[in-house]
Amino acid sequence: MSQISNYTYDEITIGQTATYSKQIENRDIQLFAALSGDVNPVHLDAAFAAGTQFKECIAHGMLSGTIISAAIAMKLPGPGSIYLGQSLRFRLPVKAGDTITVTLQVTEKKDKRCIVILDCKVLNQHGKRVLTGTAEVMAPTEKLVLESPEPPRVHIGD
Amino acid sequence: MSQISNYTYDEITIGQTATYSKQIENRDIQLFAALSGDVNPVHLDAAFAAGTQFKECIAHGMLSGTIISAAIAMKLPGPGSIYLGQSLRFRLPVKAGDTITVTLQVTEKKDKRCIVILDCKVLNQHGKRVLTGTAEVMAPTEKLVLESPEPPRVHIGD
Repeated sequence: MSQISNYTYDEITIGQTATYSKQIENRDIQLFAALSGDVNPVHLDAAFAAGTQFKECIAHGMLSGTIISAAIAMKLPGPGSIYLGQSLRFRLPVKAGDTITVTLQVTEKKDKRCIVILDCKVLNQHGKRVLTGTAEVMAPTEKLVLESPEPPRVHIGD
Repeated sequence: MSQISNYTYDEITIGQTATYSKQIENRDIQLFAALSGDVNPVHLDAAFAAGTQFKECIAHGMLSGTIISAAIAMKLPGPGSIYLGQSLRFRLPVKAGDTITVTLQVTEKKDKRCIVILDCKVLNQHGKRVLTGTAEVMAPTEKLVLESPEPPRVHIGD
């Protein structure tokens, strides 16, 4: 079992960054479809997707949003964060096999409620921006070092 | 196999609404953890969560965001929509067993690029707002009636 820890509000500095990467596999697109109920064939049916402007199946845009959310919860500020708000601007499609990297950067601290504002950029493996936005998070005041549960094992198919 | 259809830009009217509901189960929280990599124990470890302000495991906030995204893609405008942007304001936690209902309402149409602005409200079964926001979507210009793929079958555990 591994550990995860956080940055408290007092430890966080303007300009601080964190990154979080994930290779998006076809199975992630299937998981997102099962989770959300969005079973549009542009995400799930390769023959249908071949006839669209995208030529192949694309990931749901909000799948990259879930990766921003994980970057905040796992990296900066990390455990104990309270997610208050998020803006998202979807810029380019993500396809199975793409590796996306979230970069978070602290742009503002609001002492009154321990709020941090994070600039969020998600780039693909070619360095192109697929998603950008801004997050508003109440940072933890208590240092936490936690045993990190293993990710649940998930199987797709019959 | 069921069918899904869309509203074209010309068919969409200011004030038009659509709703989309989902009961959030513990397995959805586990799926979100597996998908995003956010394995914080407040979502996955009931004993840990009992010691937090939430008293029990809560869903990841962005899980409700994925349900807004599905409402747009499946209901209004539906298939052929291009998701351009989304703002999210997380207001209350969602727990396993809660049923959340997304209501989308068209507040603006921008003819030049066939863009619609959607007010997004997510209420729980008690009528409390858990998530609100605004979506910006390029609506389809072509009427689509599509065979809807079955949601992938997903199993959790060994």
